[in-house]
Amino acid sequence: MREFDEHSITTEVIDRFAGGSNARLRSVLTALVRHMHDFVREVELTEAEWVTAIQFLTRTGQMCDDVRQEFILLSDVFGVSTLVDAINNRPAPGATQSTVLGPFFVEEAPPAEQGSNIDPGDNNGGVPLYVDVTVTDPAGQPIAGATVDVWHSDAEGFYDVQREGAGLARRARFTTTADGGVRFWTTMPASYPIPDDGPVGQLLNATGRHPWRPAHVHFMIEAPGFRHLVTHVFVDGDRYLDSDAVFGVKEMLIDGFPEQPPGTAPDGSTQPAPWHVLRYRFGLTPTARG
Amino acid sequence: MREFDEHSITTEVIDRFAGGSNARLRSVLTALVRHMHDFVREVELTEAEWVTAIQFLTRTGQMCDDVRQEFILLSDVFGVSTLVDAINNRPAPGATQSTVLGPFFVEEAPPAEQGSNIDPGDNNGGVPLYVDVTVTDPAGQPIAGATVDVWHSDAEGFYDVQREGAGLARRARFTTTADGGVRFWTTMPASYPIPDDGPVGQLLNATGRHPWRPAHVHFMIEAPGFRHLVTHVFVDGDRYLDSDAVFGVKEMLIDGFPEQPPGTAPDGSTQPAPWHVLRYRFGLTPTARG
Repeated sequence: MREFDEHSITTEVIDRFAGGSNARLRSVLTALVRHMHDFVREVELTEAEWVTAIQFLTRTGQMCDDVRQEFILLSDVFGVSTLVDAINNRPAPGATQSTVLGPFFVEEAPPAEQGSNIDPGDNNGGVPLYVDVTVTDPAGQPIAGATVDVWHSDAEGFYDVQREGAGLARRARFTTTADGGVRFWTTMPASYPIPDDGPVGQLLNATGRHPWRPAHVHFMIEAPGFRHLVTHVFVDGDRYLDSDAVFGVKEMLIDGFPEQPPGTAPDGSTQPAPWHVLRYRFGLTPTARG
Repeated sequence: MREFDEHSITTEVIDRFAGGSNARLRSVLTALVRHMHDFVREVELTEAEWVTAIQFLTRTGQMCDDVRQEFILLSDVFGVSTLVDAINNRPAPGATQSTVLGPFFVEEAPPAEQGSNIDPGDNNGGVPLYVDVTVTDPAGQPIAGATVDVWHSDAEGFYDVQREGAGLARRARFTTTADGGVRFWTTMPASYPIPDDGPVGQLLNATGRHPWRPAHVHFMIEAPGFRHLVTHVFVDGDRYLDSDAVFGVKEMLIDGFPEQPPGTAPDGSTQPAPWHVLRYRFGLTPTARG
C-alpha cells in the first residue's frame, strides 16, 4: 500500500509490524504505535515541536554514561517508573510495598558486617543513624540468609557516585541473621535534588517543577522463594513528602526515624551526642502464591 | 499528595505539569502523560521490558552524531514523521504533496548553475539523468527566483555523507529561472536501505521488516509568499514503492523517469548512451490562503 493520510498511516504501520515471530513484541509495538499516533493527532504536533522532541531525546541519550542514566530520570519524572512498579508489584497482604529503583543503584555493593558503620568517613556534620530492620514472610516469621542491599545520600544530599573521586560509601550488602535482622550504623540521609543539569532538569524548570526528593534510605531485598523487593523508607516530616519529584512515596514506607538522647545505644556503644534510629519490618511476598 | 496506585499516578503527574507558564507545553505534556500511561497500563509493561526500553532509547541517542540521526530514523520507521507531515501539510488544490525530510538532508547545499552536472565524479556505472522541473503557484503560473535544494543517492544507493572522506555530491541548491525552471544533469538514483547497523535496524530485524526505500530524488523548495515544500519524486516501477521503510510514498509523487535513446538531449548536448529524464511540476501553496 502507498499514499497514507493522517489516519490510514496508523493501520499501515501496525500491519508492517505484524510480520515478526515474537507475539509479545508485536502486541507491545501495536499498542505503542496506536497510542503514539493518537497523541500526535490529538495535540496536532507541529513540525517545530517534532524537531524539539527529536533534539530533546537525542540529548537525553547523550547525557547517559556509567554513572548517569538520564532516560531513567525521564521515566521517573513522568511517573512511568512508578506506574510500571505499581503494575508489576501489586500489594499483597502482609507484604511491604515496593517503590522505584532510582538512578543511584550500583550493581555490586560492597559486603558489610552486621554492626559495622557503613559511613566511616562522613564528616559533613552528619547525625548518626542506627538501622535495626528485620525481613519476614507475610505472617511475620523471620527470613534468615536474605540479601539486603542498602544505599542512601550523605548529610548534604549527595550519593557517593556523585562525589568525584570518592569511593563507594553509605552503600552496602548485608545478609540477615537467624532472626531475620540487619543492624548497622550510618548517617541520617537528607532530601536532595535529582540531577538537574541535563535535559530532564530543563523540562522540570520549563514546567515549574522542583527536582527534590524527600530524605530516604533505599533497600533491595532478595531471598529464595520470595519476590525481589525494591523499596525505600522515607523520613517523616520531610517537606518534600507530598511532592517527591519521582512520585516514589507511599504511606507505609514513611517512618519517624526518632531522635534518641546521648547514652548507651542498642549495640552497647556509648553515643556522646543525639542519634536517630530506624526500626522497620520488611514483609516479603512468596513467589508461589495460592 | 502521596501514595499513588496505577490509576491515580496519572492524575498526579498531570497536576504536577500544570504549574508552568507555557500553555502549549502544558497541553502537549498533559496529552503525552495520558497516552504514555494508557500504553503502559494496556500492555502491562513488565519491569524487564521497561529496562529494555530504557536501554534501547539510550543506545538510540548515543548512535547520533553530526551525520547520523537515529531518533529521526526511529520516528520514520514508526510512521510518526509521515503523520506529523500529514497533519501539518494538508493537501491544497493545485499544490504538490509533501513527504518526510529523511535523514540525509544537509543544511547548506552547494549553490549550482543551471545546466550543470551535479554528479561529475560518479563512475559507479550510473546512468545519466536530465532533470527539467518547474515551480509554479496552484494555478500553474511560474515562480521565478525560488530556491530549490536537491539531493539523492548514487547509483549504488549511497548518499555522499555515507561515503567516508568524499565531499558533497548529487546535492545542490538552484534558483529558478524566469519561467520557474530548474534544469541540470545528474545520475539516476537507486533504491537503498536506511542505515540499519544501529538500534533502529535491530528493531526492523526483530519485527521482520526490511530497511529499503524506493529510488527517489529529494526536493526542498522555498519562495516568498508560499509555504515551504519538502518532498521527493519517486521512480515508478521500483520494487519498494509499496513497502517504503519510512512510509514516504504518495501517488502524485511517482514519475516514470522515462529512458531516452542516445542522441541530442534537450540542452543540445550529445548523449552517446541511453539516458533518463525527469519532468515534473511542483505547485506551491500560498502562505495567506482564503
